[in-house]
Amino acid sequence: MKFYFAGAIRGGREKLDVFIKINELLNNHGEVLDKHVANPNVFELEKNITLEERYTRDIEWIKECDILVAEVSTPSLGVGYEISYAESLGKRIICVYDKDIKISAMIGGNNHLELIEYSDINDLLTKLENKL
Amino acid sequence: MKFYFAGAIRGGREKLDVFIKINELLNNHGEVLDKHVANPNVFELEKNITLEERYTRDIEWIKECDILVAEVSTPSLGVGYEISYAESLGKRIICVYDKDIKISAMIGGNNHLELIEYSDINDLLTKLENKL
Repeated sequence: MKFYFAGAIRGGREKLDVFIKINELLNNHGEVLDKHVANPNVFELEKNITLEERYTRDIEWIKECDILVAEVSTPSLGVGYEISYAESLGKRIICVYDKDIKISAMIGGNNHLELIEYSDINDLLTKLENKL
Repeated sequence: MKFYFAGAIRGGREKLDVFIKINELLNNHGEVLDKHVANPNVFELEKNITLEERYTRDIEWIKECDILVAEVSTPSLGVGYEISYAESLGKRIICVYDKDIKISAMIGGNNHLELIEYSDINDLLTKLENKL
């Protein structure tokens, strides 16, 4: 199983600990294609790659994946873009978010997406495991 | 000419003054379908509309518009989603952003989009007017 993990980079890294745990779980079920998103040194890793190269690479990974898993607690243009792009390809999409945030209507009101609202990291990992 | 204006709502309202000026300019060239986005009272206006109703309404407006204009200085899941959705329909898309922000690769590296980087509101309005 190939996964694309969508998580905020420039939008904010507040949920990095959650990103890392999700990626560990996904790696038990297959391969995360875009490993850099949950890497604490993402800015250093990506500094010599142009925006155009990143865009093209990420689009190819979305095309290649079986499931896109997105952490949507943090506002992010890239994550929103990637969800819609994956949806246009008919991919399975799972969006997870902290119960204390107000979710965007384009995510929370979109019944093409599978949503997981979580109270803490253990709750999230249990619910995500049950989906896979 | 019909416009869809994409701007952060739950992502943050820091650029509301810019949203309002963009909407004034667009109204000189036609009609902005989603007038609520640049309304200071958007949360009050939308409080009795479910997420599903908002999603369906906004998607219909994107289908109806000739041009989507997005302010992308503020991270936003909804704005990212809307840009990709409009792109999948072959719509013309203009993204404007403050020169002091670091733009997402999914926007800045995407050559389907027309980008306007601005230094201040007058610079933005001049450049946007020239595109229309």
